[in-house]
Amino acid sequence: MKVGGQDTRAAWWSDEGVRYLDQRVLPGRVAIGLARTVEEVARAIETMAVRGAPLIGVVAAYGLALAARRGEAAEAAYARLARTRPTAVNLWKGLDAVQAAGPGAQARLAAARAFDDAEVAAAEAIGRHGLALFRRGTRVLTHCNAGWLAVQDWGTALAPVYQAARAGLEPFVWVSETRPRLQGARLTAWELGEEGVAHTLIADGAAAHLIQRGRVDLVLTGADRIAANGDAANKIGTYSRALAAQAHGVPFFIAAPRTTIDPATLTGADIVIEERDPDEVLTVEGLDEAGKPARVRVAPAGTPALNPAFDVTPGALIAGIITEIGIVPATAEGIAGAMSGAERTESATPRTASGSPS
Amino acid sequence: MKVGGQDTRAAWWSDEGVRYLDQRVLPGRVAIGLARTVEEVARAIETMAVRGAPLIGVVAAYGLALAARRGEAAEAAYARLARTRPTAVNLWKGLDAVQAAGPGAQARLAAARAFDDAEVAAAEAIGRHGLALFRRGTRVLTHCNAGWLAVQDWGTALAPVYQAARAGLEPFVWVSETRPRLQGARLTAWELGEEGVAHTLIADGAAAHLIQRGRVDLVLTGADRIAANGDAANKIGTYSRALAAQAHGVPFFIAAPRTTIDPATLTGADIVIEERDPDEVLTVEGLDEAGKPARVRVAPAGTPALNPAFDVTPGALIAGIITEIGIVPATAEGIAGAMSGAERTESATPRTASGSPS
Repeated sequence: MKVGGQDTRAAWWSDEGVRYLDQRVLPGRVAIGLARTVEEVARAIETMAVRGAPLIGVVAAYGLALAARRGEAAEAAYARLARTRPTAVNLWKGLDAVQAAGPGAQARLAAARAFDDAEVAAAEAIGRHGLALFRRGTRVLTHCNAGWLAVQDWGTALAPVYQAARAGLEPFVWVSETRPRLQGARLTAWELGEEGVAHTLIADGAAAHLIQRGRVDLVLTGADRIAANGDAANKIGTYSRALAAQAHGVPFFIAAPRTTIDPATLTGADIVIEERDPDEVLTVEGLDEAGKPARVRVAPAGTPALNPAFDVTPGALIAGIITEIGIVPATAEGIAGAMSGAERTESATPRTASGSPS
Repeated sequence: MKVGGQDTRAAWWSDEGVRYLDQRVLPGRVAIGLARTVEEVARAIETMAVRGAPLIGVVAAYGLALAARRGEAAEAAYARLARTRPTAVNLWKGLDAVQAAGPGAQARLAAARAFDDAEVAAAEAIGRHGLALFRRGTRVLTHCNAGWLAVQDWGTALAPVYQAARAGLEPFVWVSETRPRLQGARLTAWELGEEGVAHTLIADGAAAHLIQRGRVDLVLTGADRIAANGDAANKIGTYSRALAAQAHGVPFFIAAPRTTIDPATLTGADIVIEERDPDEVLTVEGLDEAGKPARVRVAPAGTPALNPAFDVTPGALIAGIITEIGIVPATAEGIAGAMSGAERTESATPRTASGSPS
């Protein structure tokens, strides 16, 4: 993807360390961060300067390669990076891919680059397979950011949107703002604006209303972990969109590379849900009237807050999972097939969402 | 209710005009506004300095009484106040109650006071009837603000909570922040804090997750209009809470005085949903680090936004409506009974929410 005409990835290797677009300051500023040590890589992940399950995996992989080049102890580096965030399984897959390359710095860097390139290829393929869900003017509702800022170069949920736009299908995207960190308002709206894709921002609470009133054709999000039975963890607020989609017969799809699937997690109930700092709920960051970064407090002093970062959507509510090998059912069989399968020649017939109680 | 030890209502008549707690600046400041003319009353309603369906009715009633005292044309005053906001039917009921008193200024003021006092009595009775839903430690999830800031002296959804607290039942309240205007974070958290009721703030997207994980016993909100068939309009985001409650067998109740029922609105599809300024979605108001009011922009410049203020929950998802005459079913029969009925000696048996698809 391009930023101001320049080909840009969300993170990349450089001679000085791991470079990344600092997603905390977008859309106000386009700032490139540099992590020169494993600790700095870990902090970039923890603070969500880099975020999005697939990107976390890529950055962690480069972090482990960086450790080898700097002569930092491999085991300690693995452990430090592995404990940055608890939900995205891509994190450990990225680390494992590099660790499997053996101890040599050059081999580790090559493995990290290969992992990165494989994620780019997967995202491109997800876009290609997901394009089958689009007709002219399809109105998509998405949540959080599952675009190229989250997944190198294409994104997951937004990859088919970008493909549809390039195919001239003129897709439209409802962007839910995604409190508390506002990844929808800050990042997805910015990505879509840069790519010229029509979109409209809504408060999180408005999603079900738009679905109820027939203004959404397709709900499409990424995932942070997919369990062996097809249950999927994604950004907090995803589950209620899936419930509304089911209530009104609108298909709800997840788009994710197979690195997001964790066969060792049997069901969604086994997924660890990260609880982040309550201050993320008690405050809002944005730009003040002079265009400078600012933070406002929105609740009375001393108000307690709870900040679960993800929720779990049962596979039964998911019409299909768009992977790099095709669209697979969100069932134990579908997941097993995705993990063992080669690329499908055609997409599986997605289950449609079931009927409406209202 | 008391603020800093003083008995306070959310709005009241004074010799100078209609006084009100300015709800735009809470919780940062406790500021008393004064509307000296019908136009100022109308602006207070439109800007949400006063808000909450029942309170809007009371303030509009005082506004029409004010017109009579000032010698402003009654018909023009009625028309100006009637078009301030389109969803809450209480608005027109308050106006009609005063208009029915005839043209005299004194009779109009008496009618407005009687309408106000009747709303206070209704809210107190709602609290008494709703108390039946509480056991020790009941965990309520609410949305927006349906406390004494919205409904003179007690509130609707919060009235039973306050009654339960006074009865020593130690209720707990999950407060969803309620973007875009953050009435939950700003007003409900403040009210509960002032009354010493245990509560925790969450982002709007977290409600379904907490219901799914068994951390909510009861979902309880107010309403802005209830149709003849039991469908209820309330703050945007209410509908998705009702869907989640149904999916997990958690009862979802509406608390509202009978002035919120509009028998002339046949179903929820006939309720006009106000669309407010997109800037409410594109920006967030709060307090900066010095404690001064500040506003931050959260989306890229030029981002389009849509801002529906309410959504409609079908009666089929509502376990019951807590009114001043008891808990009635959210059905055509229940609504008809509520409109014709005297106070019930005991609450109707509420329907329980139906089973879970997940």
